[in-house]
Amino acid sequence: MNVNGTHYRTIWPDPDNQQSIKIIDQRYLPHQFVTRTLSSPDDAFRAINQMLVRGAGLIGATAGYGMYLAALTADPKRIHEDLQAAAELLISARPTAVNLAWAVHRVLTAVSSLASATEIRSTARFAAEEIADEDARYCRQIGQHGKEVIDTIWHRKGKQCVNILTHCNAGWLAFVDYGSATAPIYAARDDGINLHVWVDETRPWNQGARLTCWELEQEGIAHTLITDNAGGHLMQCGEVDLILVGSDRTTHTGDVANKIGTYLKALAARDNDIPFYVALPSSTFDWTLDKGTEISIEQRSGEEITQISGLTEDGRRETISITSASTRAKNYGFDITPARLVTGLITERGVVPAERSAIHALFPDLCSSPGHSNR
Amino acid sequence: MNVNGTHYRTIWPDPDNQQSIKIIDQRYLPHQFVTRTLSSPDDAFRAINQMLVRGAGLIGATAGYGMYLAALTADPKRIHEDLQAAAELLISARPTAVNLAWAVHRVLTAVSSLASATEIRSTARFAAEEIADEDARYCRQIGQHGKEVIDTIWHRKGKQCVNILTHCNAGWLAFVDYGSATAPIYAARDDGINLHVWVDETRPWNQGARLTCWELEQEGIAHTLITDNAGGHLMQCGEVDLILVGSDRTTHTGDVANKIGTYLKALAARDNDIPFYVALPSSTFDWTLDKGTEISIEQRSGEEITQISGLTEDGRRETISITSASTRAKNYGFDITPARLVTGLITERGVVPAERSAIHALFPDLCSSPGHSNR
Repeated sequence: MNVNGTHYRTIWPDPDNQQSIKIIDQRYLPHQFVTRTLSSPDDAFRAINQMLVRGAGLIGATAGYGMYLAALTADPKRIHEDLQAAAELLISARPTAVNLAWAVHRVLTAVSSLASATEIRSTARFAAEEIADEDARYCRQIGQHGKEVIDTIWHRKGKQCVNILTHCNAGWLAFVDYGSATAPIYAARDDGINLHVWVDETRPWNQGARLTCWELEQEGIAHTLITDNAGGHLMQCGEVDLILVGSDRTTHTGDVANKIGTYLKALAARDNDIPFYVALPSSTFDWTLDKGTEISIEQRSGEEITQISGLTEDGRRETISITSASTRAKNYGFDITPARLVTGLITERGVVPAERSAIHALFPDLCSSPGHSNR
Repeated sequence: MNVNGTHYRTIWPDPDNQQSIKIIDQRYLPHQFVTRTLSSPDDAFRAINQMLVRGAGLIGATAGYGMYLAALTADPKRIHEDLQAAAELLISARPTAVNLAWAVHRVLTAVSSLASATEIRSTARFAAEEIADEDARYCRQIGQHGKEVIDTIWHRKGKQCVNILTHCNAGWLAFVDYGSATAPIYAARDDGINLHVWVDETRPWNQGARLTCWELEQEGIAHTLITDNAGGHLMQCGEVDLILVGSDRTTHTGDVANKIGTYLKALAARDNDIPFYVALPSSTFDWTLDKGTEISIEQRSGEEITQISGLTEDGRRETISITSASTRAKNYGFDITPARLVTGLITERGVVPAERSAIHALFPDLCSSPGHSNR
């Protein structure tokens, strides 16, 4: 995607150093475009845990490269033990997004039968690159399938502007390229469909206000920032034609774990008869859990709510406290939108109802594979 | 209510100067307790419009005193014309809360048949004080009636802690004293009921994070701050026993205009079978509108979303921008919760279903009085 006119992925091998990986430090967006270098599995752990990178696909890709860095830095004599330790570390970085464990296991499986450190390193790198490339390719395919959903609404509206509401950032910053929820938007724009995006600010980390708005601005997509509270009112007023969100984990029965607050938008969509679609690559499916309520919901520091960073009028970065010093906050990262509220899932293989039988029919090769477990 | 152990109302006649009124400037809470003096209807207009004061009851009380200040500062030869002009100015300060026009008309009606400026001034002051006293008294009565709702849940739970979720600030800072949604909480606490309040931060103005948390802390009520996004998840997890909110305007058919985001919580309450109560004094009823969708929804500056104020680590007050400079935001102040989602209305005369016939039966004297129109 575009950053000031230059094409970027969110993660890429350092062209100047085979031993390291580059990422965008998303904590500083939209005010500063900062890149960082990862040189060890510990670096990758910190990047995921402290949210330098975030988003289902990008967490997976970073974990994949993290396993490559683990192979590079491991003691050749005990490389499999070191890789196992790195795998456990990386998986512990964040609990909800299933792509993390999925990517780690994919690299582990790729190297499991190899003995030579050199071979393990090149294979781990190949597997990590494959994860990243596949993520970008699947997101592009999600765009092609999801575009049809937008196109149908556009024609129904007599080619008047289609208003799409999105929550959090399921954009290219959450993946390697294109994004999941944004991919259909970019594809529809490329086809000349007139659209406008309502962007939920997405408290407390403000992924919408900071990342999605910036990303849509870079791509020239018309958008308006709103508070997380406003979506219901806009739906009641007929100002929303479609809700399009991503997912951090979707059970094979169609329940969706996504950024906290998604469930409230799904309820409002249902109450106002507005289609609610979830866009996700198959790496986000959890084939082991039957119920969304079994998904572990991350709790983060309450300071992410009581404190906030931004730019002062004279351009200094400052962190301020918005509450009394004694105020305690609880910070839940995700919620579960039950399958009954989901109109459809947009995947790299097509659009499918949020139902076990339909999901299994579209992914017969994955639903029975233990390699896609999150456990 | 208590501020560092001293009893305060949110608005009071200046004890040192009969010509002026004192208020708390709520923009600086919780970090600074700042009081201001109002000496003219223009001062009262600015206090309401720029949200030095906010909340249904307090807007009404401020408008009542604003009319008294208008009588004081009016040209005695054209005092009725000046009062009419002040009335129009004050009503224009904010469009959604009906208490504003209600209070203005109440003072206008009280002085309408009087000719002497002296008599008009003393009558206007008496009417304004009556509005403020009545607001405090009605809120205390709301507390007594609402306490029964909490008590029933407490007993059903075997006297285990009752978890109440509230949105925005319908506390004493939104009224003259006690508050509407908080009054039952204070009354239940006084009766020894064990309770805990989940406080929605309430973007963009953060009434929950800044005001409700501060107010509950001053009163020693256990509470936890959450993002507006989190309530649905907490309800799904069984962590909420009751939702208690205020109202800025309630139609005589039971539709509720309240702070933006209230509707989303009402949907989640219904989806999880949790009681959703709205606490309001009768001054908040609109006896002229049959449908909530007819209520004018205030839009405020987008900068209330993109910028935020607070304290730096070294104690300086700072305003920061949290988005790219080019990001445009739309800022809707309220939404409509349809009567079908409301379990009951807690008024000064008792708890009543959100239905026209029940509301009319409880307020036969008000429902037919043109003096309670907002038009």
